[in-house]
Amino acid sequence: MNIILLENNELSEGHVVLNDHRARHIIKVLKSRVGDTLRVGVLDGEMGEGTVVAITAKYPFVVELTVQLTGPAASVPTIDLLLALPRPIMLKRILSQVTALGVGKIYLVNANRVEKSFWGAGLLEENEYRPHLIHGLEQAVDTRLPEIRTFRHFRPFVEDCLPELVTQYGHCLLAHPFTEQTLSNSLLAGSADRILYGVGPEGGWVDFEVEKFLAAGMCPFSMGSRILKVDTAVVAIHGRISQEMERR
Amino acid sequence: MNIILLENNELSEGHVVLNDHRARHIIKVLKSRVGDTLRVGVLDGEMGEGTVVAITAKYPFVVELTVQLTGPAASVPTIDLLLALPRPIMLKRILSQVTALGVGKIYLVNANRVEKSFWGAGLLEENEYRPHLIHGLEQAVDTRLPEIRTFRHFRPFVEDCLPELVTQYGHCLLAHPFTEQTLSNSLLAGSADRILYGVGPEGGWVDFEVEKFLAAGMCPFSMGSRILKVDTAVVAIHGRISQEMERR
Repeated sequence: MNIILLENNELSEGHVVLNDHRARHIIKVLKSRVGDTLRVGVLDGEMGEGTVVAITAKYPFVVELTVQLTGPAASVPTIDLLLALPRPIMLKRILSQVTALGVGKIYLVNANRVEKSFWGAGLLEENEYRPHLIHGLEQAVDTRLPEIRTFRHFRPFVEDCLPELVTQYGHCLLAHPFTEQTLSNSLLAGSADRILYGVGPEGGWVDFEVEKFLAAGMCPFSMGSRILKVDTAVVAIHGRISQEMERR
Repeated sequence: MNIILLENNELSEGHVVLNDHRARHIIKVLKSRVGDTLRVGVLDGEMGEGTVVAITAKYPFVVELTVQLTGPAASVPTIDLLLALPRPIMLKRILSQVTALGVGKIYLVNANRVEKSFWGAGLLEENEYRPHLIHGLEQAVDTRLPEIRTFRHFRPFVEDCLPELVTQYGHCLLAHPFTEQTLSNSLLAGSADRILYGVGPEGGWVDFEVEKFLAAGMCPFSMGSRILKVDTAVVAIHGRISQEMERR
């Protein structure tokens, strides 16, 4: 936890009382004392500094802070992710990891090789997935929650939503092993203001899905012959795209 | 499991009998039948094709294959990893993930912020960590096990081993948030035949360690202001370096 994140309604006239895992973290891990200052931010809001004004250092832990907000978080991430819905345990890790790396939006879509049961996971409720996003923000020192959108039916998504979405991006890339196109070639032309990248399910997209993505305007690229698990691919490709953007 | 991997001593005159998780996988996941062919490889050896010649499709599962080895695996990975020893549960995941992404060697080193107890983990025994490497190879379709070397004492490693190691690489890079240097700038000059990258412990290297790494010839680089967990950083930086290498 590299920043203490507050809900907007927790802050009252620059003052907040924490009595949950954040209080415990401030006392047990950061070992803060009255008078110490901490990095603080408001979710989807500004960042600033908190000063510890009171502490109850034994269970139930309580920490009171006065908070001075000083300005916006880092710039909005310019990378968005389109992901075939993975199994819940993997989705949890991916949500934290890509939030830490920085993504603006995450589109979770159905695919032929997505198990139907994954759509029944409680994790798809906002109150269930939100803590994993916050975990990523606490790690990376950011306040902006990625926006999550779910598309339970592939065809309406790819036919009705995606062609419009694609127009919002400089590049829409689809990780797909069966192409000769490399990522650097895919990014040669066009603006790199905003990039959407798509990662399929374990076992990959089926041909019909790839055709539909290409018809909607996405470009396939390959990273070579090694087959990666979805969670590894999501993070490694984010690194590759970030590297390309660093060069511009 | 995208390839069935065999120990060298399991193969006898082009014939092998499997009765462990591989047999179960061939029967239950791949649903193979007599006459089907599978991708097969020998650990640290050649790749080829196996033909199913007999199956016992109920517990205890048994599969007999005749194996035709046809040639070497993909080229040796040109990226090596220097990693402050992480906690065992994270190390397991990192070993599988970087093996899937492709690394030649993994140097596990001590650091001030490495908990002493991590060095007592059974995972550092070859018979304990090897399955996690194999898991990565099975995923990525490769046969070459990365070499693992452990250095329990920081100073002898950095003073006596590292200066010599550094000469084997075109670039030796140290992920370190407190520098202005970017990865693309770090890689501008010099050969990129082999690259070593170093990732610190949770909380980062201490100043003394960074000084020692730089004195030994490593170059620091930063990926920006976001602070990443070790497992995320290891995979994302591998992606970034791979992307730079793809451009050459």
